[in-house]
Amino acid sequence: MSGRNQDEDRAGGGTVVTPSAEFPPLDPAEVATLRRIGEHWRTGVPRDLPVDPTLGRYRARPAPGRFSRLAPIALFRPDQPDELVAAEPANRPDSRLGRGLSRARRAALGPPLTSAAVFYERMRKLVALPVLSSDLLSSVAYGPEALLTVLVLAGSGALGLTLPLSAGLVLLMVAVGISYRQTIPAYPHGAGSYLVAGDNLGVGAGLTAAAGLMLDYVLTVSVSIAAGVHAITSALPGLTPWTVPIGVLVILLLLAGNLRGVRTAGNIFVLPTYAFVAAIVGLLAVGYLRAAGRGFAPVAPPAVPAAEGLGLLLVLRAFASGAVSMTGIEAVSNAVPAFRPTEWRNARTTLAWMVGMLVVLFAGLTLLIHLDGLVPRAGETLLSQLARVTFPTGPWYAVVQTTTALILLLAANTAFNDFPRLLFFMARAGHAPRRFLHLGDRLAFSNGLVALAGTAILVFVAFGGHTEKLIPLYAVGVFLAFTLSQSGMVVHWRRHRGSGWRRRALVNGVGAVLSGLVLLTAAVAKFTEGAWVVVIAVPLLVLLFQRVHRHYRTLHAALALQPPPTGHEPGAGPPPAASEAGAGPPAAGRAAGVGPAEGEELPQEVRHLVVVPVVRLNRASLRALAYAVSLGRPTLAVHLAPEDSEADRFREQWRAWGDHVRLETIVSPYRAVIGPLAHYLEALHAAAPELVLTVVVPEVVLRRRWHRPLHSRTEQRLRKALRALPGVVVTSVPVHLPG
Amino acid sequence: MSGRNQDEDRAGGGTVVTPSAEFPPLDPAEVATLRRIGEHWRTGVPRDLPVDPTLGRYRARPAPGRFSRLAPIALFRPDQPDELVAAEPANRPDSRLGRGLSRARRAALGPPLTSAAVFYERMRKLVALPVLSSDLLSSVAYGPEALLTVLVLAGSGALGLTLPLSAGLVLLMVAVGISYRQTIPAYPHGAGSYLVAGDNLGVGAGLTAAAGLMLDYVLTVSVSIAAGVHAITSALPGLTPWTVPIGVLVILLLLAGNLRGVRTAGNIFVLPTYAFVAAIVGLLAVGYLRAAGRGFAPVAPPAVPAAEGLGLLLVLRAFASGAVSMTGIEAVSNAVPAFRPTEWRNARTTLAWMVGMLVVLFAGLTLLIHLDGLVPRAGETLLSQLARVTFPTGPWYAVVQTTTALILLLAANTAFNDFPRLLFFMARAGHAPRRFLHLGDRLAFSNGLVALAGTAILVFVAFGGHTEKLIPLYAVGVFLAFTLSQSGMVVHWRRHRGSGWRRRALVNGVGAVLSGLVLLTAAVAKFTEGAWVVVIAVPLLVLLFQRVHRHYRTLHAALALQPPPTGHEPGAGPPPAASEAGAGPPAAGRAAGVGPAEGEELPQEVRHLVVVPVVRLNRASLRALAYAVSLGRPTLAVHLAPEDSEADRFREQWRAWGDHVRLETIVSPYRAVIGPLAHYLEALHAAAPELVLTVVVPEVVLRRRWHRPLHSRTEQRLRKALRALPGVVVTSVPVHLPG
Repeated sequence: MSGRNQDEDRAGGGTVVTPSAEFPPLDPAEVATLRRIGEHWRTGVPRDLPVDPTLGRYRARPAPGRFSRLAPIALFRPDQPDELVAAEPANRPDSRLGRGLSRARRAALGPPLTSAAVFYERMRKLVALPVLSSDLLSSVAYGPEALLTVLVLAGSGALGLTLPLSAGLVLLMVAVGISYRQTIPAYPHGAGSYLVAGDNLGVGAGLTAAAGLMLDYVLTVSVSIAAGVHAITSALPGLTPWTVPIGVLVILLLLAGNLRGVRTAGNIFVLPTYAFVAAIVGLLAVGYLRAAGRGFAPVAPPAVPAAEGLGLLLVLRAFASGAVSMTGIEAVSNAVPAFRPTEWRNARTTLAWMVGMLVVLFAGLTLLIHLDGLVPRAGETLLSQLARVTFPTGPWYAVVQTTTALILLLAANTAFNDFPRLLFFMARAGHAPRRFLHLGDRLAFSNGLVALAGTAILVFVAFGGHTEKLIPLYAVGVFLAFTLSQSGMVVHWRRHRGSGWRRRALVNGVGAVLSGLVLLTAAVAKFTEGAWVVVIAVPLLVLLFQRVHRHYRTLHAALALQPPPTGHEPGAGPPPAASEAGAGPPAAGRAAGVGPAEGEELPQEVRHLVVVPVVRLNRASLRALAYAVSLGRPTLAVHLAPEDSEADRFREQWRAWGDHVRLETIVSPYRAVIGPLAHYLEALHAAAPELVLTVVVPEVVLRRRWHRPLHSRTEQRLRKALRALPGVVVTSVPVHLPG
Repeated sequence: MSGRNQDEDRAGGGTVVTPSAEFPPLDPAEVATLRRIGEHWRTGVPRDLPVDPTLGRYRARPAPGRFSRLAPIALFRPDQPDELVAAEPANRPDSRLGRGLSRARRAALGPPLTSAAVFYERMRKLVALPVLSSDLLSSVAYGPEALLTVLVLAGSGALGLTLPLSAGLVLLMVAVGISYRQTIPAYPHGAGSYLVAGDNLGVGAGLTAAAGLMLDYVLTVSVSIAAGVHAITSALPGLTPWTVPIGVLVILLLLAGNLRGVRTAGNIFVLPTYAFVAAIVGLLAVGYLRAAGRGFAPVAPPAVPAAEGLGLLLVLRAFASGAVSMTGIEAVSNAVPAFRPTEWRNARTTLAWMVGMLVVLFAGLTLLIHLDGLVPRAGETLLSQLARVTFPTGPWYAVVQTTTALILLLAANTAFNDFPRLLFFMARAGHAPRRFLHLGDRLAFSNGLVALAGTAILVFVAFGGHTEKLIPLYAVGVFLAFTLSQSGMVVHWRRHRGSGWRRRALVNGVGAVLSGLVLLTAAVAKFTEGAWVVVIAVPLLVLLFQRVHRHYRTLHAALALQPPPTGHEPGAGPPPAASEAGAGPPAAGRAAGVGPAEGEELPQEVRHLVVVPVVRLNRASLRALAYAVSLGRPTLAVHLAPEDSEADRFREQWRAWGDHVRLETIVSPYRAVIGPLAHYLEALHAAAPELVLTVVVPEVVLRRRWHRPLHSRTEQRLRKALRALPGVVVTSVPVHLPG
């Protein structure tokens, strides 16, 4: 592992979710550099502090301060001599509004969980199965229908192909299932397509798989919710105008459930999934009993005229359409680290169960539909027709429809499990914003969850909650990921050449070819119906990920520790701090090729000039001046005047005060303040680039938001204008208004 | 003048527009306090600076800095030993986008004007007349019609009252005109209703007048533009669907013209106003010639059935409706300082001319309409009917209509002259945001102009550009201002009792009573048609002005210079600066009733603790640490860790670096960073309230806006969280990314 470079290490090995992922450790080379830098540091700073930083001496709660805010010292527990632990209240926001929101959040999401609880938030298999399989299993509600809908375009005669095509799909399911079964132990810390493809086929392939998966997760939420809401509104047509609000509400409920944390989310979803499976198994049992009663003689389907010829393309399209039944098979492999130990073994078992159930439900439903001679028709789903034929009377039809609607709504939950996890892995490799590394206070990836819910709501609202408009965009992304993942596994086996690698590579190869065919068919056949969106979006997303990565790489390089230049030897005499207060030329050692930027990192080489912009003489500016002077460094006050007479007047006041600080007046005849000041500081910096200019600005702290337009907010504007200047440090001295 | 308090001084005396209004001088008491404070200051800071602040030594342009931004030293002209003058390029923004926008702005608005140019931007009378009178004169285009529209409700018989009522209106015009003529020399620096009412009847009356005027200015723009655009679309019906965009465009053009500055704006509007006056005078001449041809025998009006009885209320409503002809008479008195010297004399002459022209046009038109027996009818304005009757053939009808449309569009310009000026006076007295004091770089009150244009566009769009919906809101505000202003003048004469004060007071009294009657009638008769908006809005605005004033008063009191406590005598031994670096208890002198807040204003009493939050050890945090240590004050580093293992790892790195700064680790088991850190600093502050905590935070300066979501922006969030804490100074050490 140590031979790999850091990126590979992060992508391949370190796939365990930890709260410290945001704080990656330094590598040995960096520690060595750090040590060398430290040897050059000279500090004259006393280690005794004017206050006890451990707060240990002040066990009693101190009296309220001037601003009647209780100092929450009791919120910290001194742990070790130099360590405090922040108790839960230390996270509470300070404003009244913030506290109110925080309380509402607690009520909805539960109290925060400490990092130590992360290992308990793992899933048992019996919980993991429903959580991870609802997407996969729910798709049997529309998969067979999608297959038959295409086939029947060539007339009832073509329906004879249903069983061979279904057999092919079952083969595909088993092939992909076995492939993932092989993948999970090979990548025991998370075997998602992003990691597998990236590890074996290169970063580009991994990012492509990730882009496909991300689109698919968003679509899973939108499509499942749309289909589920449609099932509800079919039963209760009065709710139809409320389709979009209901869908948005359900997405928000899913978000809230997931923000509560993994285990809680799992508990919510156990019952409906098992109920759906039970309902469908019951349906199959009764259906086959009825078919046995007539000796398994198939009912002839109604005559449907052919709209298209029965060509290869149509057959492939039917196959590709039926393959939407497989969306969600990816779920387990991404979620391996969420299982209880031994994670990979439990995950593999769960996957086997899931695929087995999928095959049983899919094959059973397709065959029964064939036996009953049902064909898709507008206004009623095939599953609904089948349930109506099987259960002509009694509540069983309603049970099947209810559980179907419910599992469709919950299928979206799979995406809520996988999307944030995918983003976590991507963020750790620097391909996604770092904030997706952050574990929220319920140990859920709050940022990723919110991002998914937000995007899904956007898509749902944009498409008005219409399932049929969303379907063509669906499945392209997931088969892209399947293909890349399984191709990656072929490379993996070839590379590692363990026992039986040829057999394994063959299994994955077959899966890859089949997935690739489905991908091609889906992309081509559905291109004009909406698949073009995905075809365009995937490369754009990959580009974005790469740009993000480039930015982090630049940042990392810029912030990397650099050893001090060799000219400085540790212990080579007293530090040149004596020149700090003087006005002499830059130190000679600095002129010899040592740029100011590097030198800034050694405290003894920092040369200060404190600049205080003063608009008028009042308590705020005097406080800023006092603060500046108290730093004991050369100080310059700068006044901006709109005209000469005002400048004279100000200088007079300055002399009345005692002229304690050298004053420079800039007359700004065009009455601008920020621009000339910023340019003046830039000019000072250019004149003496080795100086660090500390600009001390008083900041009047307003107590009400509506007061803001009443102030020119010079402090903020100046800070913004000076941000681009190197070597300019801006210091805000707050001045608080009473009441 | 010296006996008055400051507010009165500002409202009454200092009504000259100067660029220094943003920088009011200190009064003698404040200067004395400043002197006393200065005597207590002890500074050990050398006056020699490490760089020449005059930039004089560096005449040659220095080489481009590391970030290839030319230091624009040539942009400053050293003037006196301690004064620089910012040349125009010093105002240029730094960003490329900013420079582009700035260039476009220059092209549209012209180059900036220096403060010294303010006295040349005055108006000659012949320019002032059209600029200030377009609102007043344009209203004769709808004033007589408004009068007759109400009268005719009582049938054609009631039209006999036209001439007496018009005579009454002429009397009112003359009375108000004479009243303002009397007011201008009494308030030679600006005689607006706000100042006159405020000066004589108290602040509340002044604010009420100001609120009425402000509403009226906004409505002047909206109504005039709506009427003007309607005139255009009547002539060219194809443009009707574009009413709102055309109106918005015209308002924006007016805004641009006014942002260019006073004189330029005047030049644009000279021609159309005079053309309108000439066209109406020509219409009157030809009309009376025709009437003379038939011996001035009136044509009998067509019979109109009575819809209402002819009661006193109807007559008063007719009078009030006709009085909309007088909106805009206020213009001159507000704009006195914009005249060339002697301002008040030129203003008075201009006012006399304006009122004279108004009387001639209004009386002439009303009489001619009466002689020609015209009555208002739907689809065509009365003026249009008159022009059609007078000029049956030839281009003259078109000339009258065109100039009418044009002057209506330009009438809005009066508001653009007065609104920002009113806001300037209010801002100087602290009743409006201070930013309205700022003279833009074209010496126009840019902020006020933009505020007016924005509000007028909002109103215009909200009412869909329909004149008839806006009219009922109109004129209530202006007659409120008239009434208050003239009542104020009565008080003024009573108070000052100069020669002939009884006669003057009588004149103003009559004006006040007449205006008050019109006001009451307008508010009551038009209440349900829309005047209720104004009746509600005026008190709300007054409340807002008062709240603004209270905020500024609080601010002023909080920032007022306070003499140091008597315990400290100047020259009473060495300053207690020795305790700065130590960890000893607070100085004894401080404990004796001298709170930390006051002491902060003397530099020798500031006791420092520098706190550096460190998330990870990289170049940014090391630079922040180096900066902090280089200040030479007690320094504490604080690390936030999500779990114990990370805390241990970090401490190890810290020791590898050399442990140059005392480190405190806070384990934040709920993974929040900002909250615990802010609470820790608050606890430190509570433990030692006399300390000034300087929090040094590295700030990575991002070069692209889209990079922002990739960072947690701890610096900004921490700054926001710490803002509420007294005694906590936040210092940003910028770290720039290359490329």
